Formats: sequence, C-alpha cells, structure tokens
Amino acid sequence: MLPFARVTVIGLGLIGSSILRAVRVHMPTVRLTGHDVDPDVRQTVRALDLCDDVTDTAGAAVIDADLVILCVPVGIMGDVAAGFAADLPADAIVSDVGSCKASVQAALRAALPGAIVIPAHPVAGTERSGPEAGFSSLFHKRYCIITPEEGADETAIARLESFWEKLGADVERMDAAHHDLVLAVTSHLPHLIAYTIVGTASDLETVTQSEVIKYSAGGFRDFTRIAASDPTMWRDVFLANKDAVLEMLQRFSEDLSALQRAIRWDKGDELFELFSRTRAVRRSIIEQGQDDAREDFGRTHE
Amino acid sequence: MLPFARVTVIGLGLIGSSILRAVRVHMPTVRLTGHDVDPDVRQTVRALDLCDDVTDTAGAAVIDADLVILCVPVGIMGDVAAGFAADLPADAIVSDVGSCKASVQAALRAALPGAIVIPAHPVAGTERSGPEAGFSSLFHKRYCIITPEEGADETAIARLESFWEKLGADVERMDAAHHDLVLAVTSHLPHLIAYTIVGTASDLETVTQSEVIKYSAGGFRDFTRIAASDPTMWRDVFLANKDAVLEMLQRFSEDLSALQRAIRWDKGDELFELFSRTRAVRRSIIEQGQDDAREDFGRTHE
Repeated sequence: MLPFARVTVIGLGLIGSSILRAVRVHMPTVRLTGHDVDPDVRQTVRALDLCDDVTDTAGAAVIDADLVILCVPVGIMGDVAAGFAADLPADAIVSDVGSCKASVQAALRAALPGAIVIPAHPVAGTERSGPEAGFSSLFHKRYCIITPEEGADETAIARLESFWEKLGADVERMDAAHHDLVLAVTSHLPHLIAYTIVGTASDLETVTQSEVIKYSAGGFRDFTRIAASDPTMWRDVFLANKDAVLEMLQRFSEDLSALQRAIRWDKGDELFELFSRTRAVRRSIIEQGQDDAREDFGRTHE
Repeated sequence: MLPFARVTVIGLGLIGSSILRAVRVHMPTVRLTGHDVDPDVRQTVRALDLCDDVTDTAGAAVIDADLVILCVPVGIMGDVAAGFAADLPADAIVSDVGSCKASVQAALRAALPGAIVIPAHPVAGTERSGPEAGFSSLFHKRYCIITPEEGADETAIARLESFWEKLGADVERMDAAHHDLVLAVTSHLPHLIAYTIVGTASDLETVTQSEVIKYSAGGFRDFTRIAASDPTMWRDVFLANKDAVLEMLQRFSEDLSALQRAIRWDKGDELFELFSRTRAVRRSIIEQGQDDAREDFGRTHE
C-alpha cells in the first residue's frame, strides 16, 4: 500500500532531486513528475532520467498529482504555490521541505486557500547544490519534522508520514513555532556562525588567504563545509526565521563575551569547565546515530 | 640516513602516541623512548608496545636521546622541561608540538638555558585524546610548522625538518609570532566558537537538550566534533595565545554584529553577498588537499 500514486516535485536541486531518486528506489511504481523554473536544471533532470515527466510549467506538473512537494527557497514558496494554484487538484496534498515552517505555512495558506497543506522539513542535506548533487539515501535515518496546523486532516498527515518513512526517514510531529526555535539553534545559528568566521578569516590583513587555506586543518576547515551551502536558500532562511535566529544569536554573543572575558582575565577554570561539558554533547550525538561514529567524521587520512 | 637515532617523546596522548606509531612505520630502526606523568597512560603505552622503553621519570627518558619532543599542554611545557633539564644531553635537540609557539619558545628557553630548542607545530589532530587515539598516518600530508629562533643552528633545523618529512608532513618555517596569529584564526578561534555554540545550545530553556541532539544534523553536529577536543590542552592554548585570540575574536564579533543587523533590517543582499563569497574558500581548501573532497566530509549516509 503506497501512500501516493502520483508525486510531483517543484524545485529540482539537492533536496528535490534526492526525493525523486529516493522515490524511484523505495516506491518504484509511483509516477514522478518534476518542474524547475531553470531550463538548464530541467534539461539536466531529463538527461539523468530522474522522473517520468519534467514539465515546463508548475501548473502542468501538479495537474494530476496526489502529492506536491515544494523544494524551493523559503522566500518564494508563496509565489511558486500561487503559480500553480489554479491547476491543483482539490484532493492533492501540498507539502514542502523548507527549513523554517511558520512563515512557509502562512505563505502556502495564503497562496492556496482551501488546499490541503501539510508542511514538512527533512533535516538532511549536504554543502552541495543542484540536481546532480542529490542521492537516494540522503534521508535515510534522518529526521523529517511534520508541522501540521491545528485541525489538519489526520488521514492526510498519516499519508505524508508514511511517504517519508518509506524514504527512510524517522518522522516527528511538531508545532511550527517550536520547530523554528529548535532549528534556529541546531541549524540556522551554526550556519550563520560558519558563514561569519569564513568571512572574518577572508578579510584579514595580517594573515594571507593562502595561509588560512593551508593551515585550515587546525579546525577552520570544519566551518567551511556548511559555509559552502546554497546562498539563496540561506539568505531566505535567516530572513524568514528572523525572530528565533536573533534570539539564539543574542544568547551566543553573550556566551562568547563571557569566554572572551575569561581569556582576558586568565580564568582558566571557567574555560576548563565549559570545555569539559561540551564533550558529553558530542558523545550523545554519536550514541543516537546522528553523526558518523568514526573520528574526524570519518575523513580519510591517507 | 636517518636524522635521529634515539627519539624521546614526553607526553603520550593523541599526538605523542601518533609520533611513536609514525616513527615505527617510517623509521623502524630508531630507538624510541616514551614518558608520561600518568602511570595509567604509561601502562597503556607499554601494553600497546608503542616504543622500546617507557620510563617512570622524564629525566630517565631523555638521558641518551638525540631528539626530545614535548607533547604536553602548552601551559606546562616549561615545568616539564625544567624537570628533565639536568639529564638532557648537551647535543640533544628539544622540540615540541604545541599549538602556540611564542610562549612555548620563551618557556623552553628559560627552562633549558643553553639547550638546542627548535619549536614545531604539526597542524593535525582529531577530537579524541589519549594513547589509544593515536595513529601512524595522522601527520600524512598535513603541515608541520617549525619556528626556529633567529640564529638557530641550521643543521639542527634541517634534521628536525627531515624528521617531520619522514613522518609524511609538509614542513614550513615561520616566525613564532606570525604562527600564533595564523593559528589564532585557522584553529584557536574555530575551537573557541565551537565550544561556545555547544555551550549555548546546552543552556536553553525553550529547546531541550534531547531536541538539540536529535536535530543536530542540520549543522550543529559539525561544531560538536571540535568542541569534544581535550579541555586541558585548549584551556592552555587560549591563555597562552591570548593577544592573538582576543584580536581575532574581536573581528569575528564585529562581523557577527554586522550580520545580525542585516538580518534585523532585512538586508538580504548583504547576506547573499557574504554567503556567495565563502563558497570559494571551501573550494580552495579541497583543491589544495586540506580536506576530504567527498561531500559532507565523506560521512556515511547508510
């Protein structure tokens, strides 16, 4: 029993193309349709043969879908949805993969009055972008958070949950506002900090760019991975989840100031106490299968 | 032609034990002696058979060495060196692996008047600690920075360079003060920020610790790796390289405040401009072989 027979993906980058690939692997009889606003991306997806149909318009892509998943930057979710609203079947479920949920929920609700909208967020990705960067196991053992509105249809929620479970994800339900707070700390703040430090290191006068790159194995290189993430996607996330991001950023800045003061005044005990505490967090992440258990993320040392 | 015949390593944690292992692989005829202040560590190193001799005192370890490498936290380099000063052969070369060099140089110079001291820093490591965490390929294709004082003996420098090259490292020479500035940005600041964000995330009231761990794949988990590094080692680094760390931290905080303001005032273009710039840094690091070229650090997705 498959939850959907005809799935449409709008936006065929890393996440969208990974969904296509994962559906092909786990639900090979599902009819898959894709659309992307960029003709080059459509051409690539056709060449890679990732779905049954690639349409030139979003409307043509949704016309007989029973599930439509929006995989576009969160800032344009509403506009994209409005573009296919007239062609959307009344019984189709519309979902998305955006990294913040309250703003997306509001935008989709406004663009698609009366439609069945169940927002979702698979917490998965890599630093690469585009249809060639996707792979079918991206969602395997990762969480997918579903944020249905109060009173949303339980059958529709159950079908979407089943869909993500078949792609290998562990599904959780959460209130959209709480999702945005949780992800502000586990994802948005880390990206903001990574982008910042890579920028800071690039702008020094006393240390050259080539020295920064040469000696990056001392720790800096870890930050450059997520600072290589898609700029449009992340610009939109910070603006769409502004309140939660600013709140987390404020806390982080206070904590950083406290450490700065501890260094300035030689308070080694304060440093040691924090540095001992943070080890346990890493251990828990590994124990719960949320990171590679091998040291150094499993990087090769040969 | 081996640069040294009898090598002594003081401090047998991740780096010290990796040196022992790498010497065994690349210079198997070298006589290896080790010492650690912790009897349990000595016992482990004996059980693992990582060197020819494990001595109970530092003095006994250095007595016939031609190279002594200190692999202890930078805050105790001077004390440890003073402890074996009386037993050090006059023609032995003393080096270290500390992450900051100006303070170590001064401490060793004071503790070992008249000795041949050539400080060094292999830019390599993992988040693990202790003698069981070491491995022989740790230094392979990593940089080892040697910071000889003005007028240091060229033959001694050349022997130490040859030693590190035989362990697979690329050797560079640098002034100690410049080293400390470069490493403040490529290593010390990243560690400080990683420790801070993991602390910030642990202290929230609105998001539980278990949620932080569960959804860490959104980016946070990347920071937990280096925030799991050795607390004693890192406390010492921040105190010993205080001026350079505070200078870099100040720049980082300014840049973070600018981004905070851009988010608050919806300046998407400013965010996009920075996020586009930082991608190029990642690309350079990969091109120069300073990180795993595979996406997501080569983490498994199965």
